[in-house]
Amino acid sequence: MSFTGTIPGITAADSDQFESALMTFVGARELPLYKMMAYHLGWANQNGEPERSAAQDRSHGHLVLATCRAAGGSNESAMPYAIAVELVHNFILVHEDVQNANTERNKRPTIWWSWGPAQAINAGDGIHAMARISIFEQRNAPPPVSDPRRISMALQSLDAATLEVCEGEYLDISFQERAAVGVEEIVGVARKHGALLGAAAKLGGIAAGSEEAALNALESFGVAVGTARNLNIDLKALWPDEENVRDEVQRGRLQSKKKSIATAHAIENGSPSTRRRLGEIFMKRVLDLSDLDEVTTILAETDSKSFSEKRIADLTGQAISALADTGFSDGHVEALTQSARQIIRSA
Amino acid sequence: MSFTGTIPGITAADSDQFESALMTFVGARELPLYKMMAYHLGWANQNGEPERSAAQDRSHGHLVLATCRAAGGSNESAMPYAIAVELVHNFILVHEDVQNANTERNKRPTIWWSWGPAQAINAGDGIHAMARISIFEQRNAPPPVSDPRRISMALQSLDAATLEVCEGEYLDISFQERAAVGVEEIVGVARKHGALLGAAAKLGGIAAGSEEAALNALESFGVAVGTARNLNIDLKALWPDEENVRDEVQRGRLQSKKKSIATAHAIENGSPSTRRRLGEIFMKRVLDLSDLDEVTTILAETDSKSFSEKRIADLTGQAISALADTGFSDGHVEALTQSARQIIRSA
Repeated sequence: MSFTGTIPGITAADSDQFESALMTFVGARELPLYKMMAYHLGWANQNGEPERSAAQDRSHGHLVLATCRAAGGSNESAMPYAIAVELVHNFILVHEDVQNANTERNKRPTIWWSWGPAQAINAGDGIHAMARISIFEQRNAPPPVSDPRRISMALQSLDAATLEVCEGEYLDISFQERAAVGVEEIVGVARKHGALLGAAAKLGGIAAGSEEAALNALESFGVAVGTARNLNIDLKALWPDEENVRDEVQRGRLQSKKKSIATAHAIENGSPSTRRRLGEIFMKRVLDLSDLDEVTTILAETDSKSFSEKRIADLTGQAISALADTGFSDGHVEALTQSARQIIRSA
Repeated sequence: MSFTGTIPGITAADSDQFESALMTFVGARELPLYKMMAYHLGWANQNGEPERSAAQDRSHGHLVLATCRAAGGSNESAMPYAIAVELVHNFILVHEDVQNANTERNKRPTIWWSWGPAQAINAGDGIHAMARISIFEQRNAPPPVSDPRRISMALQSLDAATLEVCEGEYLDISFQERAAVGVEEIVGVARKHGALLGAAAKLGGIAAGSEEAALNALESFGVAVGTARNLNIDLKALWPDEENVRDEVQRGRLQSKKKSIATAHAIENGSPSTRRRLGEIFMKRVLDLSDLDEVTTILAETDSKSFSEKRIADLTGQAISALADTGFSDGHVEALTQSARQIIRSA
């Protein structure tokens, strides 16, 4: 099983340890509901039989381990938090697949496509409720991890970030029906969705017993990484890595008229005829594949791709600058810098 | 504004205080996402303008206040927990409306019907994430409420109950496609959904500083009340109070072939021809109104209504018995007994 999100700040052994902890946590429960979750997480086929899926992104969980290590903490302290953030990330994906009508994710049928939307909504709700249950286990860990005020701070950070993602999702969906969406509106949504990587980075620090200044720096770092990553997800949907091969999730986002920083730039800066043409395309109920080709052609004319890449580079720079306030050693700062680049690039 | 769930254990002033606290908590946030929530909770119209809807059930929040009072605690201590449980209950309703394709709830269009399924799924997720945020405020309350171990226990109880509701929901949905569903399977699902009233009763005790024995008794009380109430919800869908007038939620449940204790009883105990006829009806993809009439006619022949009422009465008795282990005064036990009857009846 390969992880697209394995990052320089942690080793392959760390990644295996995380995967094993996550499997144990979800697998400890017996009902078929949990088989559906195991399917989504890439450990089982649709019949619940063990079967590893090709690629799963674990950036959120791995970032918790990486920041905890940089802050001097152990994998053991970080693990319940890593599980919690990874599960929150995945409940959002399960619901997003229903919301965008994605039939496939990671080259396999989605939960809603296999079991229907009612089960998919419920499976997502279950993953959401489970996320924090792993954190309560921290009460039995050695201090300072077991400090109830730290556990409570972690829970609060995670819920606040989840709520911010929901705020972003509200805007993202409402932008689908608007032609004129500005660049800063798009960056604002990307930042709200990025709150979850902000929580991931912070929770690693909480697990390690970091002080407030370092926690704030870690959160700023994670939010900037998350913002850049989310903008890059949209760019990759427009210009996929493997030439002209968009996966189902990328196609679904574009066809349902989710806006990107590049389309927002073209709408703000294009000539009147460019803007009119984009407006006509976005007036359609659902876009077809030839519309997507026309959109990318227009975006090339308006230099919107290079504009977007510049903004992503700026955010990457902001993330790296934030690390200066963590007080971490140069070696750890360098590892997290590389991790940040990897998480943004692998979007 | 009237509340169908105002219960004998609390006064109208308590109910107003709760409503005001809930409104303040949700209303403190500015984005349109929260206007959608305010609409669902009955305080605003679809444009976000203040407008009170006719009837809202607040049994979950009110039960927290009632058990906290019985345990010697104040409304102030109970309020954040009451808000949390009420919000969890409501996130489940918002998602249920999508899952069952209910176009109306409380005689008004549902969120998904007004804003689409994607926004409704997201609004539910947001309410879910908000639920616990009110609990973190308890850290600033006077002891014993601010004791972080008690706050953590409350959070864990709430998440565990939410996960149990999701387990029940999984079964409930999967039963839709099966004709033969047994009485005990149905009672098991009702009990899992009842976990949330169990958490409500327990959280009132936690707010009041109750000891473990009383907390366990309160949880048993609440789960039994919740189980009986859920069974009664299904009975009322089959045999509504106002003769032959089913609301949209009741119709949606029946037409999507959600099973009830009464249909399960008829399937287990009916004659071969009764069972075959029920099987034929439940083989249809969606039931129409004449099918529902035939189902109720069959259930009358098999005495399934009286069987179900007997089981609900037994569960009510179990709930009341559990109160003996709380150590509460006779007056408080009597108030909670009346509250239990009211919550079950007003299903």
